[in-house]
Amino acid sequence: MLKEFKKSKSEDKTELKAEIKALKEKLLGQQQLIREAKLPVIVLVEGWAAAGKGSLINDLISEIDPRFYNVSSIPIAQATTARYPFLYPYACSIPENGKIMFYDSGWMDCAVHNYLRREITKDRYRDWIREVNEFERQLHDGGYLILKLFLHLDRDEQHERLKSLRASYETEWRVSADDLWQHQEYKLFRDSYDEFMEKTGKLVPWRVLDGSRTKSVALRDAFRLLTDLIDEGLKNGRYTGKPFKESFPLKKMPKLADVDLSPVLEDEEYRKELKKLQKRLAELHNTIYRKKIPVVLCYEGWDAAGKGGNIRRIAKPLDPRGFDVMPIASPLPHELARQYLWRFWTRLPRTGHITIFDRTWYGRVMVERLEGFCSEDDWQRAYNEINEFERMLTDWGAVVLKYWIQIDQDTQLARFTDRQNTPEKAWKLTDEDWRNREKWPLYEEAIDEMLQKTSTENAPWVIIESNDKKYARIKAMRILIEALEKACEKQF
Amino acid sequence: MLKEFKKSKSEDKTELKAEIKALKEKLLGQQQLIREAKLPVIVLVEGWAAAGKGSLINDLISEIDPRFYNVSSIPIAQATTARYPFLYPYACSIPENGKIMFYDSGWMDCAVHNYLRREITKDRYRDWIREVNEFERQLHDGGYLILKLFLHLDRDEQHERLKSLRASYETEWRVSADDLWQHQEYKLFRDSYDEFMEKTGKLVPWRVLDGSRTKSVALRDAFRLLTDLIDEGLKNGRYTGKPFKESFPLKKMPKLADVDLSPVLEDEEYRKELKKLQKRLAELHNTIYRKKIPVVLCYEGWDAAGKGGNIRRIAKPLDPRGFDVMPIASPLPHELARQYLWRFWTRLPRTGHITIFDRTWYGRVMVERLEGFCSEDDWQRAYNEINEFERMLTDWGAVVLKYWIQIDQDTQLARFTDRQNTPEKAWKLTDEDWRNREKWPLYEEAIDEMLQKTSTENAPWVIIESNDKKYARIKAMRILIEALEKACEKQF
Repeated sequence: MLKEFKKSKSEDKTELKAEIKALKEKLLGQQQLIREAKLPVIVLVEGWAAAGKGSLINDLISEIDPRFYNVSSIPIAQATTARYPFLYPYACSIPENGKIMFYDSGWMDCAVHNYLRREITKDRYRDWIREVNEFERQLHDGGYLILKLFLHLDRDEQHERLKSLRASYETEWRVSADDLWQHQEYKLFRDSYDEFMEKTGKLVPWRVLDGSRTKSVALRDAFRLLTDLIDEGLKNGRYTGKPFKESFPLKKMPKLADVDLSPVLEDEEYRKELKKLQKRLAELHNTIYRKKIPVVLCYEGWDAAGKGGNIRRIAKPLDPRGFDVMPIASPLPHELARQYLWRFWTRLPRTGHITIFDRTWYGRVMVERLEGFCSEDDWQRAYNEINEFERMLTDWGAVVLKYWIQIDQDTQLARFTDRQNTPEKAWKLTDEDWRNREKWPLYEEAIDEMLQKTSTENAPWVIIESNDKKYARIKAMRILIEALEKACEKQF
Repeated sequence: MLKEFKKSKSEDKTELKAEIKALKEKLLGQQQLIREAKLPVIVLVEGWAAAGKGSLINDLISEIDPRFYNVSSIPIAQATTARYPFLYPYACSIPENGKIMFYDSGWMDCAVHNYLRREITKDRYRDWIREVNEFERQLHDGGYLILKLFLHLDRDEQHERLKSLRASYETEWRVSADDLWQHQEYKLFRDSYDEFMEKTGKLVPWRVLDGSRTKSVALRDAFRLLTDLIDEGLKNGRYTGKPFKESFPLKKMPKLADVDLSPVLEDEEYRKELKKLQKRLAELHNTIYRKKIPVVLCYEGWDAAGKGGNIRRIAKPLDPRGFDVMPIASPLPHELARQYLWRFWTRLPRTGHITIFDRTWYGRVMVERLEGFCSEDDWQRAYNEINEFERMLTDWGAVVLKYWIQIDQDTQLARFTDRQNTPEKAWKLTDEDWRNREKWPLYEEAIDEMLQKTSTENAPWVIIESNDKKYARIKAMRILIEALEKACEKQF
């Protein structure tokens, strides 16, 4: 795209100015309409150093009410040094419904720089490109309007800009060593940008703007693209992506009905094992901290299955500086106003840390599916989206384990009754629990489907038989320990 | 406190164990009661390196449901390198109502280390101690239960602990250079801790625990203190602090009724000035970025006073990477569940950045006062609390400017009517705006009081006459420019 880029023709300045004024007013009207339509908008502004990305954004926002937009400028370094997955800072700052987020450089610049700098291998770069495509598709399918701009300069023009910035005391600090390196390696960067755009332009196309002319042409073009995109979004209404199927290598899972819930553990053996395993877990916690391995441990299961007690036994030997338990309740308003995985992105562990999720993103294909909190397309799509999300985590180096804590209906009834009759436990039992219990067969069907479709090789489901809580706790610890040991052997 | 610390007597192990078990169960029952009573609890755990703070916390939380607590462990470095005020990471992680937050080391360790390391001057250290007292009092007065523990070791015991940690491969990484330095300078640290505790123990007392004995004694004592504190909190109900008066040096402010709203600016002069001032502002934005000066610019004013347009004129010449506009609406549920300044703490600019608040924390003494969203004691106390908050900002080096955008009732009516009759503007006008308008005299009284009580020398109010919006915009820019120029001269 950049190699064959043709400069735009020169245009009449007065006409240009008039058109920009009209488009500005149009955007001013649209800001209120996207709020009403609850449309979130992402504008990614990439481009050459000194091409004027910042001032382009500033002109775009100059008339918008601050309640309707935000600007995010994330240093490239953050992605590689902040101990989070590459897309983490971008995913954490997606806009909420009805708002526009401008990214002043984003995932393209970050990926290309890190690759050319040899911070990541070619294989990893390929992963990142795939993750970008998945990230953009998930947002697109979740109703986000996305505009991707590239502000282009040819080599000579970049030279002039950098020279003029460096000539003045007020502006010379704006030119970084990275910028000079980019200029030095102009062709290498150009070809890499071209490659990146080619590989990430299928679903959401790239728009190259001519940054060399009077900045008005690029500004007018950006305004046109943005207002057209919003027009289209308003006309078509909020988009919902159709389900699709990517073949992830899946582990075969048994149906819940076929799970043998008879295993029990005697008190004495339980105590002995617990002590031994907790000691081992404490050691491993040290090791994963030192090896900077992130761990994501997911708990799902029936009400009263014993998730809480199971989690507590695992958390006990851990250093509180190195783990978090994230109880997941119904989403709050500011969470509902964003793509459904956002509230999990923002809760990911950093490298070397453990996050235990007490309920997870799988709510999408259980309660949200059954209670109609999202459309059928939404939850049907979620199996793949979740597999992608978890592959992103394991490719990053995380251990991802998912426990389904299983009990049968009789055991649940006994535990509900016990809760009802024990004052200290009564708060744990709500009317909703009884209502959910009535829907047991519907839930079982949904859970069976979930287990079949999302038990990937890299992030497998493990069924923890929990009619006997002691047995369940020991099994959960053992499997975690095995997984951590395997990860520690692999990673140095 | 540490100098004369007497070791606890040795105790019968079986009795101790039984007591701990009973206290654990008590806390288990309390977790639900504090949720119902909406009581937030802070447990600060300070102490010597290797004293066992982490494992103390882990034992305390071992039975609590993860929905009821969090553990925060903030590296000391964060306070001085993260480009935020000293207390920022702690203030951003206060618990919400009904939850317990454990700080695994906190503001004491951070302040003492930074002082002894000569990262801050003695004067600055004194500021920090004052800020700690203000921070704790504000939380206390806002209904927080606070427990401050210090886990003590004498020098020989610390020596043994460090030696044993360093002897094993699995644990040697836990001993940092800082820990060894602390041990080397044991007496210096002890005296500094003593001094800190003496100066910050008046409102919320420090409790020194004996970390040398079998850890059970310290654990039992911590359990006792925590459950007693919660008992007391449950008995007395949520505390609301009484108003008090500290004498801040105040600037005399005119009454709103006496403000001359006649100034206007002709179109031609406006354009000329605007261009000139925006150019200057762009230059200054560069300078404050380079000098790492944070800027907090607050906008308050009547509905339709012209805040939005005024802010846009100021934002236009700024580099979007270096500023944010924060529109402040009604607090969301997760914001209402915390002390009222929390949602502003979390939105502070980092050094070198500008944050423009479109409405601010002054909502406490205007809408929250008049609509009864807080008690009279709450808003009466807020004048001082806000003065303290802003002094903390300016002591940190921030420029804090507060604009009251003033119009008269006739002008407001004209603008409301215009909004009503202009489709693109109609969304800006709500029924609430009309209801607020009816309360003009009540608001005027509250605003006059606010201007008198919070126009400090360091963070003054400026009245911006805005019957003529052009005049208002130019005045706002001029005053901002003056303030930035002054700050740039002072700071190198």
